Amino acid sequence: MTRPVEEDEVLQRIRSMLENGIEALGLSDDAAVLDPPPGGPLVVSTDSVVEGVHVDLSLCSPGDVGWKALMGALSDLAAMGATPLAALVALCVPGGSGEGDLTLGVMAGVAEASAAAGCPVVGGDVSGGRDLVVSVTVLGTPAPADPPPVARSGARPGDLVLLTGPCGASAAGLRELRGGAGAGVAAAGPAEAYRRPVARLHEGRLARLSGAHAMMDVSDGLALDLHRLADASGVGLELDAVPVAAGATEDEALGGGEDYELIIALDGERSGLLMDRFAAEGLRRPSVVGVVVQDASVRTLRGRAFEPSGWQHRLG
Amino acid sequence: MTRPVEEDEVLQRIRSMLENGIEALGLSDDAAVLDPPPGGPLVVSTDSVVEGVHVDLSLCSPGDVGWKALMGALSDLAAMGATPLAALVALCVPGGSGEGDLTLGVMAGVAEASAAAGCPVVGGDVSGGRDLVVSVTVLGTPAPADPPPVARSGARPGDLVLLTGPCGASAAGLRELRGGAGAGVAAAGPAEAYRRPVARLHEGRLARLSGAHAMMDVSDGLALDLHRLADASGVGLELDAVPVAAGATEDEALGGGEDYELIIALDGERSGLLMDRFAAEGLRRPSVVGVVVQDASVRTLRGRAFEPSGWQHRLG
Repeated sequence: MTRPVEEDEVLQRIRSMLENGIEALGLSDDAAVLDPPPGGPLVVSTDSVVEGVHVDLSLCSPGDVGWKALMGALSDLAAMGATPLAALVALCVPGGSGEGDLTLGVMAGVAEASAAAGCPVVGGDVSGGRDLVVSVTVLGTPAPADPPPVARSGARPGDLVLLTGPCGASAAGLRELRGGAGAGVAAAGPAEAYRRPVARLHEGRLARLSGAHAMMDVSDGLALDLHRLADASGVGLELDAVPVAAGATEDEALGGGEDYELIIALDGERSGLLMDRFAAEGLRRPSVVGVVVQDASVRTLRGRAFEPSGWQHRLG
Repeated sequence: MTRPVEEDEVLQRIRSMLENGIEALGLSDDAAVLDPPPGGPLVVSTDSVVEGVHVDLSLCSPGDVGWKALMGALSDLAAMGATPLAALVALCVPGGSGEGDLTLGVMAGVAEASAAAGCPVVGGDVSGGRDLVVSVTVLGTPAPADPPPVARSGARPGDLVLLTGPCGASAAGLRELRGGAGAGVAAAGPAEAYRRPVARLHEGRLARLSGAHAMMDVSDGLALDLHRLADASGVGLELDAVPVAAGATEDEALGGGEDYELIIALDGERSGLLMDRFAAEGLRRPSVVGVVVQDASVRTLRGRAFEPSGWQHRLG
């Protein structure tokens, strides 16, 4: 009989935290009520971060875990060219909501990511459990509604393959942290890319508005995710080069994952339009990493087949 | 490098399972795209079931866990009077997606509940972890859009308090199962209420259309949830009787939880309208359990104060 009261108290503190800077509708009722912009479709996705599988609390803070969970889910909206509308967070915390410090630490990171991305957290749930698990569901809309959300499956032979930025920083950051760089590591280096990744929401929206044929975020590893986009589109890929983040190796760029850069396939004319729009908005110029070819069995980097490597910086 | 391939295979099998009988849009892209009915608000909620906290796999099957997780989340839509639009399921499974049997067993139960409630599963995620955790997010809409979703906070002095059915069956079922009734227990008895609860979606929708002032589902315990509704509305409650499910005790009805019956507060005239509508649709006649009073410090059952008991059949 004491636990529900404790839960209510912790939930009240979470509510206050989320109300500092963002909306927090509905956190005190059975469900939240939203008013999506009329007339367009909804884009929805869910993603989880599990301590011991995706993150290690000896290498990052509870706040980092909350940030990573929300940004990872938002990256799926970015990959469709959607703008965030709302998020819901289901938290399992060892010791349940009685573990106020851990619960509130994670939710503080969620609140920071929520403010940074402009995505209000409108609902949530806190349970006990042996592992820390943060499951985030995000809702978004294409704004404006036309063109529609961009799938993985639209790449066409002759398309250019663009990447919004270099890969491997997150994996390099994890390597640095495991090597003992610890909490004193530089705030802007790879460790920061590992702890506080940023979903490319602005880039994804502009790519959709520029008429991207196919799009996907780099979450499990660039090489694996390129294979998945090519599989979904029924095409092959000939890559010339892979942009590697400072401090990372090419293997980390290919297989590290959690970079959250976007892979974009589109024809040359639209690519020019996209480059102009990115420049006008002050965004980093995307790299052209290769071309789409008809033969789906072709997956080459500098003329040699590349494997669908990925997930190497997951802990499990 | 083997894990992502295994995950892709398990996800492909889940996709096939969900396509048997229900829609499964978007399970192969970064996010799913939905077309909600135009013009109305969205109602969203998230809920988790954790093995060892909410359920015990020695007392119910993986399919039961999946069913309970989806129905528990849908009950929050019922409590707002909303109709389900879509669900997303985030699964943590010991051993990860390599544990195909457990993953597929849980998802089979999710698929059955999805078909039973008419709520397609449009997105999901499978991770590893030590505990089995099923987090479900549901999206719904009021259909028709007017009157709006029903909050907990609208109960007014003089309202009647209705309950859509007797409580305590789930707690009694858990007691039976713990007592060794095991798998051979009667399919229609309390154990079935524990393993396969049903969200009162139809009842919630009719209550909203009848002009309910406040509504809430009984998830954590009738007594606790009555206190919460009264707290949210700033009112008191004088209860005459609590309907107790066959095989359950009054303590189980008051504190058991997971009954998913709906508490509805509304004035006498609307109550008559609601009773007529329920009868016309062949639904069980709600019980009048008491009245709402102005003094928020009053929370009585048969003239004696009742405590906010709840969560007693949670395992943790």
